[in-house]
Amino acid sequence: MSANPVVGIIMGSNSDWPTMKAAAQVLEEFGVPFEARVVSAHRTPDLMFEYAETARSRGLQAIIAGAGGAAHLPGMVAAKTTVPVLGVPVQSKALSGKDSLLSIVQMPKGVPVATFAIGEAGAANAGLFAVALLANTDAALASRLDAFRARQTQAVLDMKLD
Amino acid sequence: MSANPVVGIIMGSNSDWPTMKAAAQVLEEFGVPFEARVVSAHRTPDLMFEYAETARSRGLQAIIAGAGGAAHLPGMVAAKTTVPVLGVPVQSKALSGKDSLLSIVQMPKGVPVATFAIGEAGAANAGLFAVALLANTDAALASRLDAFRARQTQAVLDMKLD
Amino acid sequence: MSANPVVGIIMGSNSDWPTMKAAAQVLEEFGVPFEARVVSAHRTPDLMFEYAETARSRGLQAIIAGAGGAAHLPGMVAAKTTVPVLGVPVQSKALSGKDSLLSIVQMPKGVPVATFAIGEAGAANAGLFAVALLANTDAALASRLDAFRARQTQAVLDMKLD
Amino acid sequence: MSANPVVGIIMGSNSDWPTMKAAAQVLEEFGVPFEARVVSAHRTPDLMFEYAETARSRGLQAIIAGAGGAAHLPGMVAAKTTVPVLGVPVQSKALSGKDSLLSIVQMPKGVPVATFAIGEAGAANAGLFAVALLANTDAALASRLDAFRARQTQAVLDMKLD
Amino acid sequence: MSANPVVGIIMGSNSDWPTMKAAAQVLEEFGVPFEARVVSAHRTPDLMFEYAETARSRGLQAIIAGAGGAAHLPGMVAAKTTVPVLGVPVQSKALSGKDSLLSIVQMPKGVPVATFAIGEAGAANAGLFAVALLANTDAALASRLDAFRARQTQAVLDMKLD
Amino acid sequence: MSANPVVGIIMGSNSDWPTMKAAAQVLEEFGVPFEARVVSAHRTPDLMFEYAETARSRGLQAIIAGAGGAAHLPGMVAAKTTVPVLGVPVQSKALSGKDSLLSIVQMPKGVPVATFAIGEAGAANAGLFAVALLANTDAALASRLDAFRARQTQAVLDMKLD
Amino acid sequence: MSANPVVGIIMGSNSDWPTMKAAAQVLEEFGVPFEARVVSAHRTPDLMFEYAETARSRGLQAIIAGAGGAAHLPGMVAAKTTVPVLGVPVQSKALSGKDSLLSIVQMPKGVPVATFAIGEAGAANAGLFAVALLANTDAALASRLDAFRARQTQAVLDMKLD
Amino acid sequence: MSANPVVGIIMGSNSDWPTMKAAAQVLEEFGVPFEARVVSAHRTPDLMFEYAETARSRGLQAIIAGAGGAAHLPGMVAAKTTVPVLGVPVQSKALSGKDSLLSIVQMPKGVPVATFAIGEAGAANAGLFAVALLANTDAALASRLDAFRARQTQAVLDMKLD
Repeated sequence: MSANPVVGIIMGSNSDWPTMKAAAQVLEEFGVPFEARVVSAHRTPDLMFEYAETARSRGLQAIIAGAGGAAHLPGMVAAKTTVPVLGVPVQSKALSGKDSLLSIVQMPKGVPVATFAIGEAGAANAGLFAVALLANTDAALASRLDAFRARQTQAVLDMKLD
Repeated sequence: MSANPVVGIIMGSNSDWPTMKAAAQVLEEFGVPFEARVVSAHRTPDLMFEYAETARSRGLQAIIAGAGGAAHLPGMVAAKTTVPVLGVPVQSKALSGKDSLLSIVQMPKGVPVATFAIGEAGAANAGLFAVALLANTDAALASRLDAFRARQTQAVLDMKLD
Repeated sequence: MSANPVVGIIMGSNSDWPTMKAAAQVLEEFGVPFEARVVSAHRTPDLMFEYAETARSRGLQAIIAGAGGAAHLPGMVAAKTTVPVLGVPVQSKALSGKDSLLSIVQMPKGVPVATFAIGEAGAANAGLFAVALLANTDAALASRLDAFRARQTQAVLDMKLD
Repeated sequence: MSANPVVGIIMGSNSDWPTMKAAAQVLEEFGVPFEARVVSAHRTPDLMFEYAETARSRGLQAIIAGAGGAAHLPGMVAAKTTVPVLGVPVQSKALSGKDSLLSIVQMPKGVPVATFAIGEAGAANAGLFAVALLANTDAALASRLDAFRARQTQAVLDMKLD
Repeated sequence: MSANPVVGIIMGSNSDWPTMKAAAQVLEEFGVPFEARVVSAHRTPDLMFEYAETARSRGLQAIIAGAGGAAHLPGMVAAKTTVPVLGVPVQSKALSGKDSLLSIVQMPKGVPVATFAIGEAGAANAGLFAVALLANTDAALASRLDAFRARQTQAVLDMKLD
Repeated sequence: MSANPVVGIIMGSNSDWPTMKAAAQVLEEFGVPFEARVVSAHRTPDLMFEYAETARSRGLQAIIAGAGGAAHLPGMVAAKTTVPVLGVPVQSKALSGKDSLLSIVQMPKGVPVATFAIGEAGAANAGLFAVALLANTDAALASRLDAFRARQTQAVLDMKLD
Repeated sequence: MSANPVVGIIMGSNSDWPTMKAAAQVLEEFGVPFEARVVSAHRTPDLMFEYAETARSRGLQAIIAGAGGAAHLPGMVAAKTTVPVLGVPVQSKALSGKDSLLSIVQMPKGVPVATFAIGEAGAANAGLFAVALLANTDAALASRLDAFRARQTQAVLDMKLD
Repeated sequence: MSANPVVGIIMGSNSDWPTMKAAAQVLEEFGVPFEARVVSAHRTPDLMFEYAETARSRGLQAIIAGAGGAAHLPGMVAAKTTVPVLGVPVQSKALSGKDSLLSIVQMPKGVPVATFAIGEAGAANAGLFAVALLANTDAALASRLDAFRARQTQAVLDMKLD
């Protein structure tokens, strides 16, 4: 993790970190400065509001928020900042993340949360989306993203069956 | 509505009022002082926090919170007060309130929201539950609740088929 | 467990106890006298009715009822008493507690059951909700609840990633 | 309806009658004596227990019970009698009877409820199943059931497409 | 298993037997003569029709049919006989028996299948329901059913927590 | 409809015809001879078996079978013929065709049913799939299918927004 | 609509326009140049690829793609460009957009689609998210977004209940 | 695998091969020449289009496409060829293949995908369906299919319980 982060990764508990570090790994791979910390909507609501309120002035251009069950973190952060919020539904125990997904994606008109797939794939994709968002105004990053896609394509082309 | 409310009814939009007034009607019928207002988790987050933070000192003994879709209002109010929060999932357009229900009921360990049925029945029952909660220490109210139950039983006994 | 219980914890089978003892642990932690026993809606219906009918006179101010599958215990107890009933959907084998949740939460207008999350988190939260309900008229308990919340917040603030 | 009923049709509210009368119509068509009345699990629990307890001695050989939402009537009647109970999930407003279905069919081991389809088709089929059950020991009824099936087959064979 | 069976237990594959033998065990316990065999709707359709067509003449008074996934066995047997058919949804791999349940319970008007819970509990309850059905005209069996219920109640009353 | 049909369209009731005629219209448009009739799995099981058994010898190369609820027609026809069976889930009242879809698509290993979307779009696509299947060995039909696709593409290209 | 668009709005059919114009209205309100057109994944796949491939060079910084049912448009556009893709699940007839939602949000690791709520609210929020994304590097737009939020908050504060 | 394939088996990743090889095994068993390879809709979109565009000229008469999650491969291949496409929903981690199923089966009118069951059974059945499709114009293959069915029936007839 890094000074002058432009992306914040937050999650409701350190038990979400095994999922959310997929986002961190993407950002590291692309050399995007980020921070990662635990911010809980329900257990640290004041910290959550403070985090959201200071996000723009601290230079964040995207916030990746992961949560499970009644997953309120992404939506509540989005309510307190206009910095783009990317929500990651963490897979929950009883309902496998279906509750997390609906709690994050079904936001009312006026306060958007960009939602990604349940679990680790969603966390990685939130990281990639943050990269894509930054790449709009960063040609070098855009090139790295193109190169990532090319490598990814090649990896599939190289796959063998048995 | 009334001075010195002991129950607060809040909802994310006035479009939730047709559902939530079932709670108000129950409280009126039982003579429980209450207030009702629009407080939106996503559009008035600061008001929501202030509402929750001042709830106990203002004398509220229960907060009935209704919301639909990614329904964050009950859980976030519960995060900011220890006054009992009763959540009502408002029926949503696409998913019929299934999203509302899961967003409200699947709260993580540590911050409870008492959840009721989707829609008007749930709102009325949240009202009745608030009455029951108050009746624990109000014998007159407990008597009125017993009488309500007796009338309700009689109404079923009086039902005719065709 | 204790003489003069003010909260009753009941469940349909001792196989529900690993889930429901989370409620008991909360009550113990807060020093709230409670009782815990097996009462089955389908296998001991008469005991269930007797339990519900005597609840108020025995001094119970809340009943926490856990059940799985076609979970009728919370709703039927609520039908026979005006003591507040808190329902906990126990995670079921085939449907992961989705059946338990709907069987408990979708009560008809007139007989409320306050419903909590599926599984252990829901049981713990039902315990915390019972504490909150009692804390309305017990300042010492309210203080302990505030302290619990503060500790819980601090625990999140202290979490490290990796 | 009739003296000396051998089948009882019960439902939680007269609002269930438009669904449940499909069962009554089948029994009338087959000349099976039946009774039909409102018995609510949640609003008339004592009546429900009394109904179930006296069912066998009053000569009932099947009880058709319809209910919606947190549909506890069939299962609770089954808990109080060994007369075969046939459950009909009434279509509910928000969840279209999915809650009713799960609340009825997912009974725990030891207390069976025979469950039929959501809504009117299920009510009619519960009626037909009651007839089939009685036909095991009533050859004339068995013949009428065969004739019904034959007419039903013929009606399909006679269908035209535009 | 036994000569002169009055109940037939059938299932689509011997992989369903671990589930379905719960029905067999109940019938054995009650001394009800039964037969059990594999009959597949999709792989032995002619055997299925023959089984259903001869069921009444062979003396069967109930057929318990278990199947998973696109579970057509109970409904197709019911289409070919008026002997009461009891359907047991076997828990499936991907969808946990939700597909089995809907395929069995949602029968169209005219051909009923009495449906029980997903999995082993449902199989046992189908067995108990068959006993109840037979007990209508067999006082000794009715007594054994009462005794079974009494033992079951006592077993719950004897349960200890920890 | 036509002599020497190569495609059969069957459905459980004439109430399915408004859905299933979308398949007929496609076949007419492509000049594929077909027949359409009501064949009910549950109400005319013998006709269903006879239909399936004679399908190949009568020259059918595909059977489009539509059904709703516990939709057994496609799977049972497939059990009795090796002619390719295309299943169309008809939208059901309570569960919107989700029951129909699962009852058709979740066939066990060994007896395939090619399943299409719920409702009219699925019926039309079953018709188009039958055309594609025949076009494998009919170059003129393949050309007509290409032309259909080209017209369809052009229709989208010509769409205006307000 | 406008020259030099920086946001593209695409949808699979003009029947999606009543939903998707909520995105267009947001962009108009904020003065963000955009284009809107019909591009169908299944009926105009080549146009879709061409649209995606030229998106960056044409200056698009976000693509809002709406689709219903098996909604492949957002994901396939995302497969062919690194411009951020915002997906809007259009409410479908049988499954109310649940199919649309899962088809859009459950993208595999490597190709992200930012997903919003089902229907019009999701379309409006995709528009707002595009604004937020652009506002990261456009201070004037950021101010307008703050002002929009302030007006939105005030509108809630001004709501009256009856 | 083989020269001159008439069936193509494709899948989004080699992690789908344990599921999809059930299709390959069926084709091998029937002596149908086929090819199998990884083609990813999202990671190798150009290869996917090329594969689909050349399918007919290369002699393919059916394409079996397996994919999980937001499963776009079958539908997008179908958009680019009129060769019959058979879709297999691969079981996904969080949602057990329910997302895969809906993403594949709910295709819009105009571009059909024949869909099979979730997982290995679906893959095997897609193989069998491809055989059935080819058997329409290959009498020897039709005979082998009849023999396969006969062996399958016999295997069930030979099953023992315990």
